[in-house]
Amino acid sequence: MVEPLDIEGREKALSQLPDWVFNPVKNGIEREFKFKNFVEAFGFMSSVAILAEKHNHHPEWFNVYNKVSILLTTHDANGLSEKDIELANAIEKLL
Amino acid sequence: MVEPLDIEGREKALSQLPDWVFNPVKNGIEREFKFKNFVEAFGFMSSVAILAEKHNHHPEWFNVYNKVSILLTTHDANGLSEKDIELANAIEKLL
Repeated sequence: MVEPLDIEGREKALSQLPDWVFNPVKNGIEREFKFKNFVEAFGFMSSVAILAEKHNHHPEWFNVYNKVSILLTTHDANGLSEKDIELANAIEKLL
Repeated sequence: MVEPLDIEGREKALSQLPDWVFNPVKNGIEREFKFKNFVEAFGFMSSVAILAEKHNHHPEWFNVYNKVSILLTTHDANGLSEKDIELANAIEKLL
């Protein structure tokens, strides 16, 4: 079991991640990314996949052509945890 | 503009793709795939990505951990076309 973040912890973390929004239905944070074309979008996804496996924490994500949507939530915490914030920060560093 | 398949063409094509189902809301065909873990799921996605770019036809797809959902539709045809059937058949050959 992983500790979920409380509201204060979540707001503090999100203040450092201005492009991510909290999704209350999924109890996670999400961001949409747009690229020039599919090759660039999938190149980004490949980098995220390697990060995810390294962090042992995996996204729920969707792609169509040049768009990628990533949702991060922690099933073991029944919501948002530090693991999501760490992965979101690692993803941001890719850009 | 790409020609959409008529109902007869669609049923004939789907009879050769038993694991794919027609989604009338999205006007496309879809299949779910399940793998042992994320590395296998994303390995499959990488192969599909290369096929998609080669076919110049790209899926709408979703992944969470070991599961991948692929939906194929042709925006230029406003529905299902031969391009979707060709890509679905190419994906099947990967397995």
